[in-house]
Amino acid sequence: VSGALASWVDGTPGDTLPAVDRGLQYGDGVFETVLLRAGRARFLDLHLARLRRGCQRLDLRFDAFEGLRADIAAALAQAPPLAVLKILVSRGSATRRGYAPAGDEIARRVVSLWPAPPLSPDPGGVDLVWSPHPCGDDPALAGIKHLNRLGNVLAAAEAQARGAFDAVMRAGDGRLVSGAMSNLFLVTRRGLITPEVDRAGVAGVMRAVVLREAATLGLLVTVGHITPEDLVSADEAFLTNARIGVVPVRRLGEHRFAMNHVCRRIAAHVEALDA
Amino acid sequence: VSGALASWVDGTPGDTLPAVDRGLQYGDGVFETVLLRAGRARFLDLHLARLRRGCQRLDLRFDAFEGLRADIAAALAQAPPLAVLKILVSRGSATRRGYAPAGDEIARRVVSLWPAPPLSPDPGGVDLVWSPHPCGDDPALAGIKHLNRLGNVLAAAEAQARGAFDAVMRAGDGRLVSGAMSNLFLVTRRGLITPEVDRAGVAGVMRAVVLREAATLGLLVTVGHITPEDLVSADEAFLTNARIGVVPVRRLGEHRFAMNHVCRRIAAHVEALDA
Repeated sequence: VSGALASWVDGTPGDTLPAVDRGLQYGDGVFETVLLRAGRARFLDLHLARLRRGCQRLDLRFDAFEGLRADIAAALAQAPPLAVLKILVSRGSATRRGYAPAGDEIARRVVSLWPAPPLSPDPGGVDLVWSPHPCGDDPALAGIKHLNRLGNVLAAAEAQARGAFDAVMRAGDGRLVSGAMSNLFLVTRRGLITPEVDRAGVAGVMRAVVLREAATLGLLVTVGHITPEDLVSADEAFLTNARIGVVPVRRLGEHRFAMNHVCRRIAAHVEALDA
Repeated sequence: VSGALASWVDGTPGDTLPAVDRGLQYGDGVFETVLLRAGRARFLDLHLARLRRGCQRLDLRFDAFEGLRADIAAALAQAPPLAVLKILVSRGSATRRGYAPAGDEIARRVVSLWPAPPLSPDPGGVDLVWSPHPCGDDPALAGIKHLNRLGNVLAAAEAQARGAFDAVMRAGDGRLVSGAMSNLFLVTRRGLITPEVDRAGVAGVMRAVVLREAATLGLLVTVGHITPEDLVSADEAFLTNARIGVVPVRRLGEHRFAMNHVCRRIAAHVEALDA
């Protein structure tokens, strides 16, 4: 029914969990979406490091990384050449009612294997729309990939309804944050720039890879404040996420980007990384 | 294990659900917490109306209200004299991976019955702390009781750690929004005032009851903007939620409220309502 190829709950093959799980009740947990390619979980250490940071931020005690790695190995053993692995860690079943954790919950992990149909984005780039909803600043939750994703759901639904690849989310003050399911970079004469994710947004793994690899490619990169006006003076724009890699933007709202060669160089470099 | 006395998933006794439920994956759903008292679900119509509004806001098609009322009747039949009923409606199992709903999901409802130990708040009122985290403005999600509640979880954990009854959440601009698990009212010389919930916070059912009943009690009531400075000039403050009813605040951060007689009059009135 669901489209998942296989799944494990706390290491045991299975696809159900208790309804009192705080991940369902409150979105109290974190997740990762990992690309499996040719028998490897790409950038796994970056994914697991972010998962760990997310748990720490939520004061969610999860230490079953050994078991998690075994789940991942089991998934890789049956994965097609290209697949997506979703790792979800929740605070576990509620031991009483109410928002505040009791402190005696036992974290739960759910690992599921999904097909990854080949992407065929237009080589000229993808088209984006502006999300109509400002996304709220929430420094306590920004950067981590927690389970409170309704803002992304609404923005992604908007993109879908308008035939766009993704929707760009802005904060209340107008600054760019990210795509609904991606991070956003601009290519300018001063190098690359991508929004900070310390007040809103997710610190994507592919974003981290681009930030890390930029120097190798001789590119300056800045993490900063981007206004909608900055778009107009940018040469290129591109999206990143673990599934899609690096994808050029052809159009964002009314603005068209004429070029994408820097983006394509980065995409080829990242694609070729043996990770 | 969980403390729930009974639960139903889509009308069938049970306490598990598929891990691909979008309520778990993204917090894609809404919930209600209803007080059951002496064989009645208090203010049920207000709860169901809010549930319906929440589903509409999320474009989540749920129309099994007849089945839901049957679940509630089953719960009432086995509830102790005082109990809490939690109703959760999710968009249902994901039919593919990704934030945007495919459109063919089938909404799922989970109804669980919980004990409601008698409250014994100090008759002089409860003590509150300030939540250290600003809560983000998110007009698309404000007012409804959706499943993205990590902000409330962190604030409630903070209250618990500091021995307080609840934590007051403020927006980035400093205005008061609500408690982590309650709505907040001030009593001033000009009547009652409670924060708007059109940019952040939840439109609580007990808040709606107080707004509705104020006229009967000869009280003016305003829904507006409240700054921390407004607290100092207020005569009283009180909290509302469906479980606790109306509870006076003795202290909020450094500020003490000397009086609570208006609050106590409202509390007694609401408590006596035959609903």
